[in-house]
Amino acid sequence: MIRLAAGIDIGGTNIAFGLVDDAGKIRIRDSIKTQTISEAPQLAETVSQQILAAMKNMGNDFELIGAGIGVPNGNRERGTIEFAPNLKWKGVIPLAKYFSDALNVKTILDNDANAAAFGEMIYGGAKEIKDFIFITLGTGLGSGIVVNGKMVYGHQSFAGEIGHVVLIPDGRQCGCGRKGCVETYCSASGIVKTYLEKNTEIRNQKSEIDARYIFEKARQGEQVAIDSFNYTGELLGLVLANSCAYTNPEAIFLFGGLANAGDFIFKPTIESFEKNLLNIYKGKVKILPSQLNETDAAILGAASMVWEEEKS
Amino acid sequence: MIRLAAGIDIGGTNIAFGLVDDAGKIRIRDSIKTQTISEAPQLAETVSQQILAAMKNMGNDFELIGAGIGVPNGNRERGTIEFAPNLKWKGVIPLAKYFSDALNVKTILDNDANAAAFGEMIYGGAKEIKDFIFITLGTGLGSGIVVNGKMVYGHQSFAGEIGHVVLIPDGRQCGCGRKGCVETYCSASGIVKTYLEKNTEIRNQKSEIDARYIFEKARQGEQVAIDSFNYTGELLGLVLANSCAYTNPEAIFLFGGLANAGDFIFKPTIESFEKNLLNIYKGKVKILPSQLNETDAAILGAASMVWEEEKS
Repeated sequence: MIRLAAGIDIGGTNIAFGLVDDAGKIRIRDSIKTQTISEAPQLAETVSQQILAAMKNMGNDFELIGAGIGVPNGNRERGTIEFAPNLKWKGVIPLAKYFSDALNVKTILDNDANAAAFGEMIYGGAKEIKDFIFITLGTGLGSGIVVNGKMVYGHQSFAGEIGHVVLIPDGRQCGCGRKGCVETYCSASGIVKTYLEKNTEIRNQKSEIDARYIFEKARQGEQVAIDSFNYTGELLGLVLANSCAYTNPEAIFLFGGLANAGDFIFKPTIESFEKNLLNIYKGKVKILPSQLNETDAAILGAASMVWEEEKS
Repeated sequence: MIRLAAGIDIGGTNIAFGLVDDAGKIRIRDSIKTQTISEAPQLAETVSQQILAAMKNMGNDFELIGAGIGVPNGNRERGTIEFAPNLKWKGVIPLAKYFSDALNVKTILDNDANAAAFGEMIYGGAKEIKDFIFITLGTGLGSGIVVNGKMVYGHQSFAGEIGHVVLIPDGRQCGCGRKGCVETYCSASGIVKTYLEKNTEIRNQKSEIDARYIFEKARQGEQVAIDSFNYTGELLGLVLANSCAYTNPEAIFLFGGLANAGDFIFKPTIESFEKNLLNIYKGKVKILPSQLNETDAAILGAASMVWEEEKS
C-alpha cells in the first residue's frame, strides 16, 4: 500500500492540488481557477471530489492518509483563513473543517509561507537544519520561522510576519494600512516601486513593469535595474541581519520570484547581511536559495505538513 | 528533606548568590565584589565554598539539587561565558564546569536575560503564559524569548539579542561596534544620551546624570525629562511591535531600572506599541511590568533554571 498526502495550495488566481508520496514525488496534480468558485464550502467540495476521483482511478494500491492546505492568512490552530485581503472569501473561513468533512481524512491548514517552510524542511534544503527562517519573496514577503525543528506559531498562531516589520517609519504605504513595512521594499512589488522611483521616464508605462522585466533589464546591463536590485538587497540584508537577533538561525532560505534573480539579489543581500550582523553571528548564518522547485513548491509544502505531523 | 537550588548571578560589579526553594523563597543570600576575584576558576571555588558552608550550617534537612548561573554573554549549550565586554574574564570561560566540579551538582549557565526570563516563568508573571518576551532595561537592553513554553536558543545558542537589532541605521554608536542598535536608545544609558541631546545646558555636568536622575526630574515635571521618556517609549514601542511579527507573544515583560519609572515609560511605550502593531495583533499583546522583585530577580532567575529543567 502506497500512502499519499493531498497538498492543496489556495491562491488568489489558482488553486493547485496534488497527491504526494512520502519521498516528495507528486503522483497526480491539477489546478482550477479561483474565480470559478463562488463560496468556500463549494471550493472544498469541488477540489475534494477531484482528489477522491484521482485516488479511485489510481486503484487499490494507494491510501490517502491526510491533507495539507496552504493559504494566505491561514491560521493553523483554528484551521481557518482569516481576513485574507487577496482572497474573495471574507472574514473567518473554517476551511480545514470543510476539507476534512469532504475528504474524510485529517486536514492541516497553515499559512502558505509556513507550508512552504515545511516543504523546505521535509523535502528541500532544510532537512538537516533545526533553526532556520524561510522567506518567500513574491508579491509580498512571507515568512516561516523554525526553532529547534518546530515551526513558531505564537499565542494567536500568527507568528512569522517579517514582511510587516516596520523597516522605514513613515515609508511606503503598505496594504496592511501602515507605512514602511519590509514587504513594501523587499518583494516583487517592492522592487517595482523602487525601479519606478529611480526611473522617472518609464513611469507612464507603469503597468507593464514587473520584477521579471527588471531582472531582464538587469541582465542586459541596465544600471537602474541593477541599482534597484542593489537597493532591495541592501534593505533585505539589514532585515535578515536583524532577524538573526531574534532566533539565531543556522540558515535563511529565500524563495519565490525575486529569489530567482540569482546574484542580482543574493549578492547585495549577503553583503548587507554580513555588514549588518552582530559580531557573534558573522560568518555563522547562511543565506541560501530554496531548494524547492518553484512549480512544485506550493503542493509539496502543503502535503509536507501531513508527513511532518506524522513524524513528530 | 527540603530541596534547594543555588542561584548565582555574575555581574561586572557584584556576584550575588543564594539558596532558593521550589516555592521561590530565598533561604540564604550573600554577595561578593567581582573585583575581589582575579581568575574565573577562583570565582567558582570561592562562591562554591560559601554555598557549601551555608548548606552545612542549615543542617541535614536540606539537599542541594543543582545550581543555575546567570551571566552576561552566557552560552547555555556550552556552559560558557563568551567574550563578555563588561566582565574582566576574557575569551571563552567554561564557568558551568568550574561550578559543577566545585559544587558536585548539575550546573546550568545561561545568559542573564534568559535567566531572568526563567524567573518570570517559574516565579513571576509568566507562570501561565507560554509565549512571551522578557526585556531587561538596564545599562543595555537584554531579552529572552519564550515560544510555546520553551526558551529560544537558536543554532549558536545566541538567540534573543533584541538590544542589538539595528533600529536607526547610522544612528548612535553601540558598544558592539555597529550603529543605531536598539539599546543605544532604549535602555538606562540610552535615555541618558537622549536627555543630554535634548538638554544642552546640562552636558557639562554629564557624569552625574543617570536614568534615576531623569526619572526624578520627570516626577518634578521637567519637560525635557518627560520628553526623554516619551522618545524612549516611542522607539521601544516600535521595536516591541516589530518583535510581535516574529514570535507573536501573549505578553512582553519589562524589567530593570528603566521599567521602574512606571507610567513615564509604560505610557509612551504602550501608545507607540499599539500604534505600530500589525492589525492582527492589536489589542492582543500585553506589555506588563515584570513581577519579579528587583532585589531578588537575579538570584531567583538563576535558581529557577534548575527547577525549570527538572519540570521539563
